[in-house]
Amino acid sequence: MGEDDLQQLLEKQKVSAWRVAMARWVESALIQKIVVGVILVNAVVLGLETSKEIMAQWGTVLVTLDKLCLVVFVIELAAKMLAYRGLFWRNGWNWFDFIVVGIALVPAAGAWSVLRALRVLRVLRLLTVIPSLKKVVAAFLHAIPGLMGVVTVMAIFFYVCAVLATRLFSDRFPEFFGSIGASLYSLFQIMTLESWSMGIVRPVMIVYPWAWAFFVPFIIIATFTILNLFIGIIVSTMQELSEQQDPVEQPTPQSSAVELLSRIEKDIQELRRELEKNRKEGL
Amino acid sequence: MGEDDLQQLLEKQKVSAWRVAMARWVESALIQKIVVGVILVNAVVLGLETSKEIMAQWGTVLVTLDKLCLVVFVIELAAKMLAYRGLFWRNGWNWFDFIVVGIALVPAAGAWSVLRALRVLRVLRLLTVIPSLKKVVAAFLHAIPGLMGVVTVMAIFFYVCAVLATRLFSDRFPEFFGSIGASLYSLFQIMTLESWSMGIVRPVMIVYPWAWAFFVPFIIIATFTILNLFIGIIVSTMQELSEQQDPVEQPTPQSSAVELLSRIEKDIQELRRELEKNRKEGL
Amino acid sequence: MGEDDLQQLLEKQKVSAWRVAMARWVESALIQKIVVGVILVNAVVLGLETSKEIMAQWGTVLVTLDKLCLVVFVIELAAKMLAYRGLFWRNGWNWFDFIVVGIALVPAAGAWSVLRALRVLRVLRLLTVIPSLKKVVAAFLHAIPGLMGVVTVMAIFFYVCAVLATRLFSDRFPEFFGSIGASLYSLFQIMTLESWSMGIVRPVMIVYPWAWAFFVPFIIIATFTILNLFIGIIVSTMQELSEQQDPVEQPTPQSSAVELLSRIEKDIQELRRELEKNRKEGL
Amino acid sequence: MGEDDLQQLLEKQKVSAWRVAMARWVESALIQKIVVGVILVNAVVLGLETSKEIMAQWGTVLVTLDKLCLVVFVIELAAKMLAYRGLFWRNGWNWFDFIVVGIALVPAAGAWSVLRALRVLRVLRLLTVIPSLKKVVAAFLHAIPGLMGVVTVMAIFFYVCAVLATRLFSDRFPEFFGSIGASLYSLFQIMTLESWSMGIVRPVMIVYPWAWAFFVPFIIIATFTILNLFIGIIVSTMQELSEQQDPVEQPTPQSSAVELLSRIEKDIQELRRELEKNRKEGL
Repeated sequence: MGEDDLQQLLEKQKVSAWRVAMARWVESALIQKIVVGVILVNAVVLGLETSKEIMAQWGTVLVTLDKLCLVVFVIELAAKMLAYRGLFWRNGWNWFDFIVVGIALVPAAGAWSVLRALRVLRVLRLLTVIPSLKKVVAAFLHAIPGLMGVVTVMAIFFYVCAVLATRLFSDRFPEFFGSIGASLYSLFQIMTLESWSMGIVRPVMIVYPWAWAFFVPFIIIATFTILNLFIGIIVSTMQELSEQQDPVEQPTPQSSAVELLSRIEKDIQELRRELEKNRKEGL
Repeated sequence: MGEDDLQQLLEKQKVSAWRVAMARWVESALIQKIVVGVILVNAVVLGLETSKEIMAQWGTVLVTLDKLCLVVFVIELAAKMLAYRGLFWRNGWNWFDFIVVGIALVPAAGAWSVLRALRVLRVLRLLTVIPSLKKVVAAFLHAIPGLMGVVTVMAIFFYVCAVLATRLFSDRFPEFFGSIGASLYSLFQIMTLESWSMGIVRPVMIVYPWAWAFFVPFIIIATFTILNLFIGIIVSTMQELSEQQDPVEQPTPQSSAVELLSRIEKDIQELRRELEKNRKEGL
Repeated sequence: MGEDDLQQLLEKQKVSAWRVAMARWVESALIQKIVVGVILVNAVVLGLETSKEIMAQWGTVLVTLDKLCLVVFVIELAAKMLAYRGLFWRNGWNWFDFIVVGIALVPAAGAWSVLRALRVLRVLRLLTVIPSLKKVVAAFLHAIPGLMGVVTVMAIFFYVCAVLATRLFSDRFPEFFGSIGASLYSLFQIMTLESWSMGIVRPVMIVYPWAWAFFVPFIIIATFTILNLFIGIIVSTMQELSEQQDPVEQPTPQSSAVELLSRIEKDIQELRRELEKNRKEGL
Repeated sequence: MGEDDLQQLLEKQKVSAWRVAMARWVESALIQKIVVGVILVNAVVLGLETSKEIMAQWGTVLVTLDKLCLVVFVIELAAKMLAYRGLFWRNGWNWFDFIVVGIALVPAAGAWSVLRALRVLRVLRLLTVIPSLKKVVAAFLHAIPGLMGVVTVMAIFFYVCAVLATRLFSDRFPEFFGSIGASLYSLFQIMTLESWSMGIVRPVMIVYPWAWAFFVPFIIIATFTILNLFIGIIVSTMQELSEQQDPVEQPTPQSSAVELLSRIEKDIQELRRELEKNRKEGL
């Protein structure tokens, strides 16, 4: 559900006028452009902050700029929340903005210090603010539900293979197959074909010469499944496109013919009626 | 052939009522849900059994749970076999269930100890019990026959290349090309592009500088063949989809026009008949 | 041009009857099955010959069997050549058979010893003898002409990059980029993404820090081109398939409507003529 | 905009006759064939120049030949510029030719010595001079605008991940993630799946055991995005093709039916008019 829909919903609900005005203001082209600009500035600032030399010289300026950007984001988000209240949470993109901005407000100390690094996720807001990029991301997310079947099959297959690999190889190769977690990671690596033979399977085959009988079918099935996933996306994308086109293009010539036909039918029926009249008069 | 078909077949064959009732009971939604639950529990138990720490503390509990799960599977399978008898073996999925449960019943000692590890294959029963996953697996299996041509060509190509590589390189590189088996494995690795150059071909080229003339064409032909396999699946999937759609969507507007036309034709013929009557009366 | 076409051509040319008979005999189902059997036996023999243990024990038997197989092939080929004479060379598959069998007849000594290994190519005759496999290979070969444009572009791109890489990096990395040949091989390796970074580009970047500016665009352009090649095959395959289908399926309903329409038109014209007659009579 | 269009534009602008004649001469089949020949010669010369042995013996000859080729290119380019003047710059291919030839004229000394190597880019002129190759390249370039959305999303995603990786891992792994540039390169390497696990992620996981939670999702999202890019190209290529076909093939039967129908309608209306006349006369 896009933000424009939310705005319409707001107007329908007959809320106080200032809330509608505020919603319109926050989503006006000008404010959105300012927000895009602030995100871009923030992206550069966060990039520069990774360099120690630059931080030593310009550290205070950059940190101040970063905080200013954050203030803009918080104001924008607060304005939206005030305007939409409950409706705010109906939009998935708003959830994303809320989390991404919220991360920066958590005091980043001790165990939470990793959150400081996650502040850069704010730059991903570009994907929710610029409509053309939003469409691309939405298309990605749209493709996911159709893939759930294949993904579930793959997850079960991976779990079974991980348990099997752990049971078979954990004693001699604890670094690769020491636990289910380690096995899952190693199998993911093997599925991406990275060093699967030289790095993992050849060493394993020195101890267990029959190991290829486990790994080669695993690779074939896993890549075949990925392939089916891939094909699934292609086919569903093309079907969607053809469904979007069909009802627009085809009917026009077809329906015009049908219209013409029914007009002809009426003509003929009228003809018959006239003819009958003719006969009666002639009698 | 799905299980429902089997059930219908059973009813047609006029077997004793208790067998039909048992078949219905085993395949009722409730029992199927219980079986899914038991498989999930068993999956977790088998996963936990891979950890030595957990086995040391909870070993007896886990082994007991595992045995209980097995009992449920055996009962379910026995009920099906009693109900369907000969028909049981007509369904490929039943074969799979029978083998997977049967593995657990073989005394796993000595040379058969690897069978203990294979017990985890039971978790794959999720793919045969949950209908939506069964459909995905069925779609995979469905794609295989259409690929047999390309797969056979590839197998012949692989065999020829393996014999050739063994003849050419076995003396100096026994670890890669010492026997046909070793060569097949190495060629499979090369086909997946894993360390093909740094790991295998560059070392070989130090001894045989012309070795690239064998391996580079091999890679190009092998990947091109895989590509054709891939395209084969895409094309056949899309054709199937379009065949499923065509007879449903297209006819409606077309046939309505044809119907209209034949109605018009009848109208006109009636018109002619009336006209003729007209003339005769007029005379 | 298939062999059946050749046979027809032969019959049309009014050659002596024994040549037609011989052509029919060589291509009869029985002889073809025998040839397939001999190829399979030969494949096994050639495979067993790669094992030193087996050769030590059964060497003479295997070599004799191999020679017997060769005799069968030579007889089959000689029969075809006698029957078809000049026409024999019009078929690409015949060329392939001739070369593959011919290799075995060259005395394999000294510099030609590699030809002994190439005898295994004979097994590829399975692809020309079994019709279903021949179709698959023909489909592969059929796809190649449509790809020539992209392949030529890629060849030019590769040559330019190889010259450039040789000029830039040959002094410090002679093992990777010492000559145009070495550069072409290394760029092929990089295109397959095998160890491109860890094996080649990272070491190069230690000496030439800007090297990524050459290799990263190379990878992107090369993979993008491969992708276009791939898409080219998919699209042309699907177009071909749709062209094969269209003239069969679509016309039937369409043309039936058009037929109906023209029948209606004739009806109406007849109606008018009758009506005119009516009027004249009425006058 | 092709060169032929430029030529037409030139003729429309009523410039002096010698300019039109010169444009025709430069783009005549003969001159174009000579240019292709010179490029091929130059390609061979530039290739031979990379070999030190050949340069020692034939150095002066090759350098002279190279200069002669350059003279031909400069004359061709100068003729075009004289003929077209301002119009010359309207064609993207001309820009490419100008830059590629211009590089050779810059005095290649000191810091500019890399430009000497770039002279080989001249060979890429084959792609702009031979029409069939030009079409292939144009098709590539044509596909790019449609991909900008996905590419932009990917660029933002890469930047965010690079900043994040630099923040998280720069202290302990400066060779991989020491700066944003280094991180971008490493992430590109990881996206191509080259040594991602053995080379980068496994070493990182020894220090930061949770590192997989960053890299595995990165790989999945990155490859999924590449996949979408890929599908985008396939779908747009196929749509284009179907759009090119549709207006040619479909209309003929459809429109013929519509024409027939409207002819029938006119017939019927005439029939009614006659009938009315009939009635009036009859009265």
